[in-house]
This record gives sequence, structure tokens and C-alpha cells, in this order.
Amino acid sequence: MFRYRLTLAYDGTDFAGWQRQGAGERTVQGVLEGALTRLGGGVHVAVDGAGRTDAGVHALGQVASCSLEQAWEPADLQRALNAVLPPDLRVRALAAAAPRFHARRSACAKQYRYEMDVGAWQLPCRRRIAGLHVGRCDEELARQAAALYLGRRDFSALASSGSGVRSTVREVTRSEVRFGPTQAGAGPTLVYETRGDGFLRKMVRSMVGGIMAAASGERSVDSLEDALAAGDRRGWPAPAPARGLTLVCVEYGPPGTLS
Amino acid sequence: MFRYRLTLAYDGTDFAGWQRQGAGERTVQGVLEGALTRLGGGVHVAVDGAGRTDAGVHALGQVASCSLEQAWEPADLQRALNAVLPPDLRVRALAAAAPRFHARRSACAKQYRYEMDVGAWQLPCRRRIAGLHVGRCDEELARQAAALYLGRRDFSALASSGSGVRSTVREVTRSEVRFGPTQAGAGPTLVYETRGDGFLRKMVRSMVGGIMAAASGERSVDSLEDALAAGDRRGWPAPAPARGLTLVCVEYGPPGTLS
Repeated sequence: MFRYRLTLAYDGTDFAGWQRQGAGERTVQGVLEGALTRLGGGVHVAVDGAGRTDAGVHALGQVASCSLEQAWEPADLQRALNAVLPPDLRVRALAAAAPRFHARRSACAKQYRYEMDVGAWQLPCRRRIAGLHVGRCDEELARQAAALYLGRRDFSALASSGSGVRSTVREVTRSEVRFGPTQAGAGPTLVYETRGDGFLRKMVRSMVGGIMAAASGERSVDSLEDALAAGDRRGWPAPAPARGLTLVCVEYGPPGTLS
Repeated sequence: MFRYRLTLAYDGTDFAGWQRQGAGERTVQGVLEGALTRLGGGVHVAVDGAGRTDAGVHALGQVASCSLEQAWEPADLQRALNAVLPPDLRVRALAAAAPRFHARRSACAKQYRYEMDVGAWQLPCRRRIAGLHVGRCDEELARQAAALYLGRRDFSALASSGSGVRSTVREVTRSEVRFGPTQAGAGPTLVYETRGDGFLRKMVRSMVGGIMAAASGERSVDSLEDALAAGDRRGWPAPAPARGLTLVCVEYGPPGTLS
């Protein structure tokens, strides 16, 4: 068997998330496995993804790993895949990988970006890739809320119930808010960027939910800090909509350090 | 009757163009007239648009005019419209207008932008708003082709057959190619911007078709110049796909100069 690493970009709007589901659900994993299976002559190919993005979440640099019976020139396999995949899913890069490489287990960090347009209305071309916040949005309060997430801490307040993970401790090494330029008069865009060794299910959207609750004045930064420290899931604001979230890239250690 | 001027943004992907058509066709004019008719209590409202954009063509600053039986506070009417219009059509601005103001007949210039991603593949989030050019794209040749369009000339080589206009003479006062930053490794983007006193049907897309034919080496700039001078419609390259085109804005003279 030959091992490959694929870097993927997708528009999550028309996918029911990453993870393969029952028949009739169009998922990124399902579409990708279908294309690899077809190229391999029908033998089912299983693919692992670094992050199980939810329905509507986009990717610029999702990473997947798979083993194929046939040895491919990476550039040929990339071209062949892009020729059969739908236009909302593209293979940005493809390389041979070490036998032990696993897109999720070998990952050491992930970076996400969230875009939230601020204003009374949203430009139509932004509606698939950015959330919309109507009302007050205080820049300084947004920054203070974002700073709450930095460091190694228990994020159980932001964990989806029933996600069944062993530990809710994660280390967040970047958590930054900036304001992008106004989109043709519609209003500015709050851009949130975060990096961590891993994120719980819906955790980034919940982080953004907290930031927007602080920025709008709906919640004090102190009360968010308390809810975070107490692991109070019910006291945490609702997650921001999926459509503003993009998995930007997945980081791996140098070759030979793959676990 | 009270006259209004509306500035509209739309994602043209899911519209069958601007112009009202038969039942079952979703057009910008049809959807907008439906919303205004509903807000006015059922009396049919007719709307005129500055440019009859084709199916798939977007707008950042389309302008429409209409007369309403009811006097509205412009901000209230904008809010009411945005509350009932679908998210792929937004009213960016709304103002009371002079009785003689007509979005198309009063316009003195229009600006369009075309975005063409250059590379072997296209980022999924770009596929609705930019064309894709695979292969050679020479910057200098693209600029030379763009310069052919400047000035007052007969554009019959770029006119759609059967468009039935009286004159194919238009004055183009801007015709510029620049290369935007690479989209996450996918390749650079050729951005074409043009301004003129008017454009024939599919004319901007045909201008871009000429530019891409020159940039790829498929056609010499001299041969394009000859075809343009001869009004040779059959000798002109195919128009670029609609999805890369955006009507950026419509210009009007100072109040009192409206024809």
C-alpha cells in the first residue's frame, strides 16, 4: 500500500460536514472517498481527515490521509482527483507520506479563521462565507474576550454536550481579533484567528459566540471568564453560525516526529 | 406618485439575469418588483434598472428607479425591503429621486469589474465570483489588448447578434488590467476594470474574451485590433463566463442634468 497526504479546500455550504454519514448525505469525506475509490478501480478507499468540520464550515487547508493499492505520481493523482471532484472541493496539494502518517493523529496544531460582517445588512457575495452581526460591536471588548481563551485550560464550557471526548483540556496559542476593511459600505468585518493543539466540537464557533456576546454588551467579559472557569456550558453564549468558519491549515511536526 | 432610486447588490448565480421574464424564471427585476408590490399592498410596481445584467452576472452597485403611491421615509423603505428580499439581493442605499429620474436613461457612465483566476484549479470559495483561466497568461499582452478598447469606437465586433440596438458606438474611458494577489496558492487573479458611457449586451465579457485570447497567445493583439476595426463578430473570441463579471457602479450627472 502507498500512503498519501492531501491538502483540501472546500466551500462547506453544500456539504453536510466532513464526516461520512448515511446514504443521501453529501459529505466531504464521502465525496472524496468516492472519487478515490473510482480512480482505484472500485476497491473502497478510506480517508482520514485532520478535522471533522461541521456542516457549512469551510476549509482552505484541511488535510486528509489515505492508503492506495496503486503507486501514483502525486501531481498525476492531484490532477486526476480535481478532474472528477465537484468544483466546491479541490485538492490544493498532494504528496507521498510516511506509512505511519495519519492526518488527525499526527497533527500538532490547527488554525481557524472566523469572519463576521458587522452591519445592518450583508453583501450577497459574503453570505456563504461570513456571519452577520447586527448592532453594537465594541472592538476593545471583543479583544478582551478573545484573550480569555489563551493558554492551556479546560474548555468544557465550550464543549458540545455528548461529544464524548476523554479530555476537554486544550492549549490555545493564538486568539486574535482584528477588523477588516468595510465591504462596499456594508460595514466592517470582524476577523477572528485562532491556533491551538486541538479544538473540541463547535469550540471555535463557541469562542466566537463569546466574543460577540462581549462585543455587543450582552455579556460582561468578567461573566464570560467566570463561566469559562466554572466549565458552565449552559451559561455560555450560543455558537456563531457555521458559515463564517474556515479551517485555514493543519500543522505537522518535522518528518520522523510523526506519532 | 413618489419617485425613488435604489442601489442594489446581488449575487447573480441563482438569478436568470436582471430582466423580468416569464413565470418560473427568477430574475432580479421580478423579485424586486414582487417585494415592492407586496409592501405597497398589492398594486403592481414597475422597476427600471440601469443595466440589464445577464444570468450569473453580479452587482455591487446596480441602480433601479421606481414610482410608489405611498411616500416612504427612505431608510424605512430600505429596511422593509431588506427584510423581505432574499439574502442574495440587498438594497445598499435608497433615496428619494427627482420625478424625471430614470435609472437607465439618466445614467451617464457605468463601471464593471471582471475577475479571472489564473491557474490549474480554482479555490471553491471563488467559483461563483471569478472565471478560471488554465494555461499561459501574459501580463503585458493582456494590457495591450485592454488598451485596444479605449476611446469612442464602433464595438459591433463585440455585440451579440440580434441585440437590436440602434448604434454600436460606445465610449470607453477606462480599460485596465491588474494582477491581484495569489489566492491561497491557487494562482494570481487577473482583475479587469472598465468604465464607459454604455456597454452593448455581453460586451464586457467579450472584451475580457479578447484580453484572455491575447494573454494566452491564442490571438495576436494585431489580429484583435483588425477584427475590432472591421466589426468582425465571427472573428472575435468567445465571451468570458458570466460568473466573473460584476456591475460595480452606475454614475449620474449632478441633479438638474437628468435627461
